[in-house]
Amino acid sequence: MNLNEALNWRYAVKKYSDKIVTKEKLDQILEAINLSASSVGIQPYRLVVVQDKEIQARLGEGSFNSQIKEASHLLVFAAFENITQEHISAYIDRVIAVRKVPAESMDYFKQVLENNLLSRSTEENFNWSARQAYIALGTALIAAAVAEVDATPMEGFDAGKFDEILGLKEKGLKSVVVLSIGYRDEEKDEFSKMKKVRLPIDELVLS
Amino acid sequence: MNLNEALNWRYAVKKYSDKIVTKEKLDQILEAINLSASSVGIQPYRLVVVQDKEIQARLGEGSFNSQIKEASHLLVFAAFENITQEHISAYIDRVIAVRKVPAESMDYFKQVLENNLLSRSTEENFNWSARQAYIALGTALIAAAVAEVDATPMEGFDAGKFDEILGLKEKGLKSVVVLSIGYRDEEKDEFSKMKKVRLPIDELVLS
Repeated sequence: MNLNEALNWRYAVKKYSDKIVTKEKLDQILEAINLSASSVGIQPYRLVVVQDKEIQARLGEGSFNSQIKEASHLLVFAAFENITQEHISAYIDRVIAVRKVPAESMDYFKQVLENNLLSRSTEENFNWSARQAYIALGTALIAAAVAEVDATPMEGFDAGKFDEILGLKEKGLKSVVVLSIGYRDEEKDEFSKMKKVRLPIDELVLS
Repeated sequence: MNLNEALNWRYAVKKYSDKIVTKEKLDQILEAINLSASSVGIQPYRLVVVQDKEIQARLGEGSFNSQIKEASHLLVFAAFENITQEHISAYIDRVIAVRKVPAESMDYFKQVLENNLLSRSTEENFNWSARQAYIALGTALIAAAVAEVDATPMEGFDAGKFDEILGLKEKGLKSVVVLSIGYRDEEKDEFSKMKKVRLPIDELVLS
């Protein structure tokens, strides 16, 4: 499938079969997520991969999204609740190590990041981090489709409960969006045969 | 290029050549953006495509991002500043038209959308809309790379000025992120040869 075929093939699956996504396909998706762009390159989010029906059932309790408990895996995107000096230093150290450049050559960029990010409010930095996670979500949706793995992006979950069960709060993270992956059950999922609804292109693109 | 090759090939281009992106490639990218997932399917953002060096120069004035004026095209992602009854009604009407279903069959879904979206604050709806636009940005970055078109996602621009010059405010839109597209100038862009810096996968994915 080329990209637009993959985008047309995918839809937000409501009913999954029992088929499990292989480790190889999961790894492809995770690799694509890790290659996603993020502002200034800092990747201000982390992922939790859940493949445990008991934990999935606890996470999904009370949610209208039955996919949380029924899908093969859940990918929980958790954004930094703030950006700290430690985040910036760790990132700069990584650039120095990967590109084998002298530490001093990064001083100016580091200062720019500190001036910009540390002066913002916690809320601004969290919202910014969440947006970066959504770029990665966009990548994940495509990576899954290209691997012919079905997926469902979900915002209808109890973020506070997710953070507690997955131990995110103590890591300075807040779950912002969840992607279930697995395989559609075409028989049970009435949405599998519905036409995709999108704007006429000249309504999306203003003239 | 497969997906991960495309993701590895792309980087945030700093210096563009004069080469112009063809209409065919631009249309492919716009089509992919339009196929992006969005929460409840409502696509709460619009795009402005700028290909006019004079307007680009005005938009880029004072920005550290010279790409705004130098790239082949700018794609401005503008999120709904709020979600209104009109947005919901237009969306529901589109679903009815595309899927050829009776209007009454959509009553429950419409009510759910109204209850959820109209009860939120303007700020919550804007932040939510902006996040959806970032999913589309993630798609656009991949669509460009797959078409071997270079791109630069940018947040460092004066959103108020963009909204004014592009007439977005009166349309209830606010620009949230800009993507320039074009072709890298490998000679002038020192970043074209730098190694991509990403987290070790086991730091991105919490165990």
